[in-house]
Amino acid sequence: MTPRSKPFDPRLDLKVEREVRASAETAWAAWTRPEHIRQWYAPAPGVIAECEIDLRPGGIFRFVPRQPDGTEHVVTCCYLEVDPFRRLVWTDALLPGYRPATTPFFTALMTLEPRGDLTLCTTVAMHGSEGNRDLHDAMGFHDGWGTVLDQLVAFAPGI
Amino acid sequence: MTPRSKPFDPRLDLKVEREVRASAETAWAAWTRPEHIRQWYAPAPGVIAECEIDLRPGGIFRFVPRQPDGTEHVVTCCYLEVDPFRRLVWTDALLPGYRPATTPFFTALMTLEPRGDLTLCTTVAMHGSEGNRDLHDAMGFHDGWGTVLDQLVAFAPGI
Repeated sequence: MTPRSKPFDPRLDLKVEREVRASAETAWAAWTRPEHIRQWYAPAPGVIAECEIDLRPGGIFRFVPRQPDGTEHVVTCCYLEVDPFRRLVWTDALLPGYRPATTPFFTALMTLEPRGDLTLCTTVAMHGSEGNRDLHDAMGFHDGWGTVLDQLVAFAPGI
Repeated sequence: MTPRSKPFDPRLDLKVEREVRASAETAWAAWTRPEHIRQWYAPAPGVIAECEIDLRPGGIFRFVPRQPDGTEHVVTCCYLEVDPFRRLVWTDALLPGYRPATTPFFTALMTLEPRGDLTLCTTVAMHGSEGNRDLHDAMGFHDGWGTVLDQLVAFAPGI
């Protein structure tokens, strides 16, 4: 048997986790409803100008971060797995409907685990090469995803 | 709403279909069991030297065509959708476990539709660019996939 892709490979992957003071159902809503995503998914002072979600395997996850200077960047991903309240997987290696993208960069795995009154939210960004992992790291992955997960921690209890 | 990826886009996709004299269950088995895949999935006189299947979203579909001169070529794909007897989707844009591949080329959609005593088997190869579509065409897509689907037509009734 060929070795499986490991869930977390420190050579290729980046991980951020936070405990959220909300149920897994509420945390799931924060991750899967455009009106919620727009409230926390861009590191401040950036905002999410647009968000489109078709929550099924093959469906679109498209969002548009806007910087304070007005610069926008469109990110179009495809959902791969949708396991409500537990696990969400999406990638920019495929466009919606699974068509290969021209510049694949990462696959994201987001998992939720109940911890009493809290929910542990873990995000892993998987890359195809050490070069892309290192690039994502240099782009400020831990500042970026770390910051948005801090914003999730602040936002989710109010849903 | 953003336009969805169309099921078949002649600018980007290639399609081959055949009627198989077997049930959808039998045709499905031909597509999803390594011992069957090895019998028909390489255009003769090539053979499939190895085949590994983990039939679930995120699971591996790995096969090794061998040419008569002994040349082997390893193809590693990831299943995306597994809808028994109806629809199978896999891609080489992701490795098993959804890790982005370094050289994404195509996503394959295989559908089965009962037609009385026959089953219509349709395969679509989706590409990310016209260049990759044209490359696949020039590589002999219609000869290759056309030939293996003819081999499926000959093989499946004997399962």
